[in-house]
Amino acid sequence: IANNDGDALKGLLDDFHFADVAELLQELNHEEATYLVKLLDSEITSEALMELDDDFRERILDNLSPSEIADELDEMDTDDAADIIAELDDHIQKQVIDHIEDEEHAADIVDLLRYDEDTAGGLMAKELVRVKETWTVAGCVREMRRQAENVTRVHSIYVTDRHGKLKGRLSLKDLLTAPERAHISDIYIPKVDYVNVHTDAEDVARIMQKYDLEAIPVIDDEGILVGRITIDDIVDFIKEEAEKDYQMAAGISQDVEADDSIFKLTKARLPWLMIGMLGGLGAASIITGFQSMMTTFPKIIIFVPLIQATAGNVGVQSSAIVVQGLANDTIKGNIITRLLKESLLALVNGIAIALVVLVISHFLFFTSYLESISIGIAIITVIILAALIGTFIPILLDKRGIDPAVATGPFITTSNDIFGILTYFLIAKLILGF
Amino acid sequence: IANNDGDALKGLLDDFHFADVAELLQELNHEEATYLVKLLDSEITSEALMELDDDFRERILDNLSPSEIADELDEMDTDDAADIIAELDDHIQKQVIDHIEDEEHAADIVDLLRYDEDTAGGLMAKELVRVKETWTVAGCVREMRRQAENVTRVHSIYVTDRHGKLKGRLSLKDLLTAPERAHISDIYIPKVDYVNVHTDAEDVARIMQKYDLEAIPVIDDEGILVGRITIDDIVDFIKEEAEKDYQMAAGISQDVEADDSIFKLTKARLPWLMIGMLGGLGAASIITGFQSMMTTFPKIIIFVPLIQATAGNVGVQSSAIVVQGLANDTIKGNIITRLLKESLLALVNGIAIALVVLVISHFLFFTSYLESISIGIAIITVIILAALIGTFIPILLDKRGIDPAVATGPFITTSNDIFGILTYFLIAKLILGF
Repeated sequence: IANNDGDALKGLLDDFHFADVAELLQELNHEEATYLVKLLDSEITSEALMELDDDFRERILDNLSPSEIADELDEMDTDDAADIIAELDDHIQKQVIDHIEDEEHAADIVDLLRYDEDTAGGLMAKELVRVKETWTVAGCVREMRRQAENVTRVHSIYVTDRHGKLKGRLSLKDLLTAPERAHISDIYIPKVDYVNVHTDAEDVARIMQKYDLEAIPVIDDEGILVGRITIDDIVDFIKEEAEKDYQMAAGISQDVEADDSIFKLTKARLPWLMIGMLGGLGAASIITGFQSMMTTFPKIIIFVPLIQATAGNVGVQSSAIVVQGLANDTIKGNIITRLLKESLLALVNGIAIALVVLVISHFLFFTSYLESISIGIAIITVIILAALIGTFIPILLDKRGIDPAVATGPFITTSNDIFGILTYFLIAKLILGF
Repeated sequence: IANNDGDALKGLLDDFHFADVAELLQELNHEEATYLVKLLDSEITSEALMELDDDFRERILDNLSPSEIADELDEMDTDDAADIIAELDDHIQKQVIDHIEDEEHAADIVDLLRYDEDTAGGLMAKELVRVKETWTVAGCVREMRRQAENVTRVHSIYVTDRHGKLKGRLSLKDLLTAPERAHISDIYIPKVDYVNVHTDAEDVARIMQKYDLEAIPVIDDEGILVGRITIDDIVDFIKEEAEKDYQMAAGISQDVEADDSIFKLTKARLPWLMIGMLGGLGAASIITGFQSMMTTFPKIIIFVPLIQATAGNVGVQSSAIVVQGLANDTIKGNIITRLLKESLLALVNGIAIALVVLVISHFLFFTSYLESISIGIAIITVIILAALIGTFIPILLDKRGIDPAVATGPFITTSNDIFGILTYFLIAKLILGF
C-alpha cells in the first residue's frame, strides 16, 4: 500500500477508527509506519500511537522531529502525553515540550511528569470539568460548555471551593433540573470518593472496583483538586498487573510477548532456568550424599521424581492462592491460623496421594513393606512442608513490602524440590536405617 | 453489634456506602447478615448483595422469602437482578419474579434470563437512554429526563429508528448546544460500535478495551437495540478471567479462595496432584526400565531431578507465553514459524544451561567426559522438546476450541517430566551404551 500515493491513502485512512489505524501500523515495518504517522491527522495518530507496543512506538518516535512529536502530544490527553514524554530521552524531552503550542497543556504535562508511574499522580489526567460552589446554575452550564471542549468524555463534574479544594460532585441530572438561579452549593453532592496523588496505583484500582466508579478525583496533600483518573486507565492497569503476575508465576521476569526477539525472550527466561538448574544441582548433591542407599535400597531412588513433582505442584498451588488473596486483600486473620489450616488441607491431600502410591508401589514396583511405609510417610510430610513453604514465603515477602508474586513459579518450585528430596531421604534413612 | 437494637443500627448504617455494607456483611455469620439485609433499605442492600461472594449471598437469599428477594431485585439493575435469579432454584425463580412490583422490570429480567452467561446478552442490562431519530431536541431532552430516572448513570444516548433499530449515538455536548427545534437525525453521530447479543463475552471485553469504550450497545439479530454493557461489568469479567487463568496455571481447577472450606479446596487441588503423581509413577517406571544403568553409571541418575526441573520450567514458560498471546489475540503467523523460533530460543537457553552444568558436573561431581557429554546433550534436547510441547499443545487445544489455559501448570509440567526423563535416559544409553 505504502507506495507514495499519499493523498489517496490519507483519504482512505482518515475515516478509520484510531484503534484500527493502530492495528494497521503494527503490521507495517517502522519506516512505513512512520510515513503513515507523518501523513495522517494528529487527531487520529495521537490516539493510535497510544495503542501501540512500547517498543514499536519508541522506534516511530525516534524518526519524528521534536516538533512533530509535539503536534501529536497537542492532541493527546495530558496523562497519555506525559507517559509518552517519560519514554523519551532527557534532552529530547525539553525540546518536545517547548514545541507544544498550547502552553497550559504543556504546563500540565510537565506537572504530571513529577509523579511516580505507579501512583495516582502517575495515572491521572488534568482534563476534568470543575465548577466552584459559589456559581449559579446558569453560570455553571456556560462554564461547563467551555471546559468540556478539552475533555473527551464528561465523567463527573467536580465541585471545589474558592481555593480549589475538592468539596463534592455534581450530578448532571440535578444540574439539568435545578432552577437557573440556584447556587451550586445548594445542589451538589458533598459525598465523593477521592484519592491522594501519592496513593498507590493498586489501591486506586481496588477503590474504583470496590465502589464501581468510572472516574475518581485526585487531590494533593492540601486537598486541592489536581486531576482525575478514569476507569479505562484502570482497566489497562489491571490487565497489565494480571499479566505480570501470570508471567512471574511462569518464571518469566519481564513483560515479553511471543513476538519479541529471541534475545529479549532469553533475557526474560534464562535467569529463572538457571535458578531451576541450581536447584537441580542441589538435588544432585543430596542424592550423592545418600549414595550408599543406591545399592542397599535401589527402589527408594526411583520415587525421587514423584516426590519432586508433588512438592513442586503443592507449593505452586499454595502460593498461587495466597498471592491472589494478598492481591485482592482477602487474606485476613493471623498467620498461625492460616498455616494450621494449610497443614490440615495438606494432610488430607497427602493421605489421599500416599494411599494411592502405597498400593501402586507395593503391587507394581514390588517395594517392601518398610520401603512402602517410608515412601508414604515421606509423601505426607513433603506435601505438608511444601504447602507451608508455599503459604509462608509470599506472606513474609508481602510483610516486608516485596511483591509476593516473585515467590511463585520457579522460585517456590525449586526450593520445594530441594526440601522435598532432602526430607524424603532423611525419612527413608530414619525408617530403613541404611 | 447485632443485639436487637434495630433502629439505632439502621440509622447508623443507612448512610454507609453499599460497598462498605457489603464488607461488613461478609464479616458477619449468615444469620446476622440476613438480619441486617432485612433491616436495611433495599436501596443499599441490593447493591451490597451484588458485592458479596456467590456462596455467601446464596446462603442469605435462602433465608429470605420470595417477596423479600423481589424487593431487593426491584432496586437492582436488570443485569444484576437476572444474575441473582439465575442462581436461585427453579421453583423459587418463578415466585420471586411474580413478586416483583414493576412489571416492565420483571419482563426485562425474564428476557435477560434467556441468554448464556458468557455472551453479550448475558452481560447486558436493559437500562439505557434511547431516543428516536425523528424527535426534536426539546422533545428529546424531556424524554431523556424521564428515562434517566431508571438509569443509574448515563453513559451514552443511543439513537434508533422508528422500529427500534440502532442508528447511532448522541453526544450530550451536541444535544446541549443544538437549537431546540433541530431534529435528532440532524445532530446524531451515525458511527457507533455495537455487539450482537450472541457475541462471546471475551470478544466484548476485547472490543471495549480496544476502542476504550465505557459502554457498548447490544443489538439482536434484527438490529434492534436491546441493551447495553458497561465497562464495570467488563472490569469484573476481565479480573475473573485473569484469576481463572492464573489458578489454572497453578493447578487449581475451580474458583477458590484462601478462606474456602478444606473440602472445597481439596476438590480443586487434589485432581491435579493426582495427575502429577501419575507422572511421578510414570517416571518411576522409566527409571526401573533403565535399572541396569544404576550399577554401571550411578552418576547419571543423580541428575534426574535437574532434568526434570528444567523440563518443567521450560514447558511452563513456553506455554504461559503462548496462552497469554492467544488470550490477547497477538499470536499471528503460522505454527511452523512459531515452533522454529521456539526451538531456536530453546537451543540458545539449552546451550547456556548445558555449559554451566557440564563444568559443574565435571569438577564437582567428577563425571567422566562421556557422562558429561551425555548430560549436556540431554539437557539441550530436553529443553528444545519441552519448549515445543509447551508451545504446541496450547495452540492445538485452541484450534480445537478448548481453553488453552488448561494446558498450563501441572498438565504441561507432568508431561514434560516424563518426556524429559525418558529422553535423558535414551540419550545416555545411546552415548554410554549400557
